[in-house]
This record gives sequence, structure tokens and C-alpha cells, in this order.
Amino acid sequence: MESNEIFQKGQQLPKKWFTGNAFLNPLLDRDKNNEFSVGVVTFEAGARTNWHTHPKGQVLIVIEGSGFYQERGKPARVIKKGDVVNIPEGIEHWHGASSSRNLVHIAITNFKNNIQVNWLQPVTDNEYASVAL
Amino acid sequence: MESNEIFQKGQQLPKKWFTGNAFLNPLLDRDKNNEFSVGVVTFEAGARTNWHTHPKGQVLIVIEGSGFYQERGKPARVIKKGDVVNIPEGIEHWHGASSSRNLVHIAITNFKNNIQVNWLQPVTDNEYASVAL
Repeated sequence: MESNEIFQKGQQLPKKWFTGNAFLNPLLDRDKNNEFSVGVVTFEAGARTNWHTHPKGQVLIVIEGSGFYQERGKPARVIKKGDVVNIPEGIEHWHGASSSRNLVHIAITNFKNNIQVNWLQPVTDNEYASVAL
Repeated sequence: MESNEIFQKGQQLPKKWFTGNAFLNPLLDRDKNNEFSVGVVTFEAGARTNWHTHPKGQVLIVIEGSGFYQERGKPARVIKKGDVVNIPEGIEHWHGASSSRNLVHIAITNFKNNIQVNWLQPVTDNEYASVAL
């Protein structure tokens, strides 16, 4: 761990739902006060989530690097250290690192009926290349 | 802003509820999905909250520096970069910086009946000195 990093990377996230190397360090589980979990997600350069939805939304807080957030049918938004993304419920989207730098974000993920995320298909190399040029 | 800082300090917090210099950068307001607000709080060395309670708890994620978290009647806990504190509901406590270094934490603060915090008396210099030696 570099001296200026805040959190350990944690465990690698499954290739089924992530392209490239992505890692999760869980910080907080849902409990009686907190209707969400909190974790740190690290994407290596080029890594990204599959397309997915959150039934009750998710908040991303970028703490290192840069990358992209894209909702289906919209232009990708560049995100970087210090940015916050308030992801609406039920919106198909993906997020991940830029092609040359890592991306580290805290994720606050709400629950709805015990579900936090619905996973869809991968972001193809063509889809990724079209925003990550 | 130093190049390695993630967030702006934001606005100074009121002396009525904070001893020393503390600042808030609001990141997210409560909305239909998120039954909490999120903000970054920066405490300069020696700065701390008053004693207070949260009716539905608060989660602290320390991203820089070091300081203390103390519940009434218990020893102070040293907190530092990378630490997470899950503060229970209704527990009288305070948090703040060490005497020689700043403390920066993200705070996720839940709502209960539109209330996030109940402010109590200041942490006296004697109380602070007893943990911050």
C-alpha cells in the first residue's frame, strides 16, 4: 500500500460482473440504523463494472484517480478525485477507470427489499473505447 | 488546497457546537433514496465537536490525519486515516482532531423524524487534555 493511499484494496471482484481488475474493501454492513452498505472499490486502468441497476440508488464518492460514469443512452461523464455521483434508482449504467489511470471510489449502496444491484451484460471493449479515447 | 487533498474544506462550523476550527463541505443532501446526508468534516489540530447524540446514528470514515472518538464514560478511541466508526443511536459522544494534527472524515448521518443530531455541552479543555496527551 502506498503511503498516500487511505484504504487497502481488499478482494478482487468477480469477472462475471466486472471487466478487468476491480477490488472491494467492505467498510460497513447494513444494520438497524444504516439501510445501506459502504465499501471502497478500486478499478485498475481499463477496469469497469458491467451494466447494472440499483433498485434504491447508490452514491459514489471518488477519492483517487479518474474514470467514467455512464447511463444508458447518455454521454459518459468523466469522474475524478473529489467528485460525487448520486445514481438514481432503476437506471442502467456503468462506472470504471480511465484507460490509463486507476479509479478509487467509496460506494454507499442502499437496499430495497434486500436487493442492492441487478447485474446486466458487460460493457464491451467497443462501448468502453468509445468513451475512453 | 494541497495537491494530495481530495476535498475542499468548505465552510467553518459554528463555535456554538464546535471548539476550535472545524469545517464542513457538504457532499450530498437527503433525498428520496438516501435517508442521510453526506459531508466532509475537517478539524484543525485541537478542534472537536461538542458532546452530542444522533437519533439514528452516524458513520465516520477517516480519510486524513488522526484524532479521537469518545463515548461518555468510556476511554477515548484513537482514530486515523482509513478507520470507520459506526456511531450508535442515542449515545452521547464527541469526535475531533489530535492536539498536533488535523482530522478529516466523511460523515454519513442518518435522519430520524427529520433530526440528525442533538447538541450538548462543549468538550472542556480538561476533558480534551485527558485524552489528547
